Amino acid sequence: MPPVIAFIGKPDSGKTTLLEKLIPELRGRGYRIGTIKHHVHAFEMDKPGKDTWRHKQAGANTVALSSPTGLGIIRDVAGDLTIEELVGRYYGDIDLVIAEGYKRLSLPKIEVFRSAQHEAPLPDRDDTWVAMVSDTDGVTDLPCFGLEDVAGLADFLEERFITPFPKQKTSLLVNGQPVYLNAFVESFLRQAITGMTCSLKGCQDPREIIITIRQDPQE
Amino acid sequence: MPPVIAFIGKPDSGKTTLLEKLIPELRGRGYRIGTIKHHVHAFEMDKPGKDTWRHKQAGANTVALSSPTGLGIIRDVAGDLTIEELVGRYYGDIDLVIAEGYKRLSLPKIEVFRSAQHEAPLPDRDDTWVAMVSDTDGVTDLPCFGLEDVAGLADFLEERFITPFPKQKTSLLVNGQPVYLNAFVESFLRQAITGMTCSLKGCQDPREIIITIRQDPQE
Repeated sequence: MPPVIAFIGKPDSGKTTLLEKLIPELRGRGYRIGTIKHHVHAFEMDKPGKDTWRHKQAGANTVALSSPTGLGIIRDVAGDLTIEELVGRYYGDIDLVIAEGYKRLSLPKIEVFRSAQHEAPLPDRDDTWVAMVSDTDGVTDLPCFGLEDVAGLADFLEERFITPFPKQKTSLLVNGQPVYLNAFVESFLRQAITGMTCSLKGCQDPREIIITIRQDPQE
Repeated sequence: MPPVIAFIGKPDSGKTTLLEKLIPELRGRGYRIGTIKHHVHAFEMDKPGKDTWRHKQAGANTVALSSPTGLGIIRDVAGDLTIEELVGRYYGDIDLVIAEGYKRLSLPKIEVFRSAQHEAPLPDRDDTWVAMVSDTDGVTDLPCFGLEDVAGLADFLEERFITPFPKQKTSLLVNGQPVYLNAFVESFLRQAITGMTCSLKGCQDPREIIITIRQDPQE
């Protein structure tokens, strides 16, 4: 699972504006970046009147718009997915996941604080805070980056979050939750499964193997 | 993998309008329905100005909007995903997938034809056509349903496509393509993997197991 960092801050602190500069900086360094935004209200992502929007309005559980350059999927869920489930299912090819919001989770956090906008940073800082991004010094003992210092911030993320987490070759999700695999279990599972499947038609030269097993609830 | 049926027809034949009636009919019968729309032009699904849209514009490879009722994912792809890959990856919990368009693929097809709109149906009908939906009789020897006969059409889909394809418990995707598993291989893989993982922490009572194995291209 790729590392996840949360950017938090009071409303209008400039989180998205910062990410609009940070994402291209990290992309320019060769990393694949994913973002996750949490929304507490009624869900809206598609454009009203579009065919996919009409399918969804009509009650389709999952709709997709597929093109040669992009893929969009909108689906029902029966409650908030955890960050772990989201990242485990959909971010397997990503080097760093940036979550906007998600202040209450125990993810490592970077707070964006603009003294031009608010009098003080968030009041309930704890040890999940790892850095600040601010237009002022002196609000923290943590590493603090200027609003325009995206290169410095990218260096920090690279050193602390991207490089120390090499992409694991094998991931296991059980009931939507990632299961920790130590090196022995990872290697054992990977080699056993590659061995079991390699003689099946279409399984030669496997660059990616995904196996899904579902048990019916009634069984 | 769930069954897939394509709805095709000339532009403005009424495909989406029909699906807006058919999807609730099938949902009302207890089925989970997915749709896939193909788009040949530049990709657009999100709402300009929204945070997720801004993340994607800034270059994020994958963005998600997560809420308690819905999940939206927009991601880059390096070329059209095949229907098999899309369905294999994202439609595992769906009973019937309806593709709009995709006329050139060898999927089973239902053509929507309105004589009020066009002089003739599509000219190149072949044996992948399984039914028509039309405001007129006599254009085909295939089963033909009226534009308002969504109950009849739903009966047909239920009998021909949904019921004969019980959801497989185990699916295997290699390099994005589904691999056919006969009953012996399915049972062998499922029991071997369930057995290998069941003693790991968090793997008790596995209702769903997803294992992903990636090999680095340079290896």
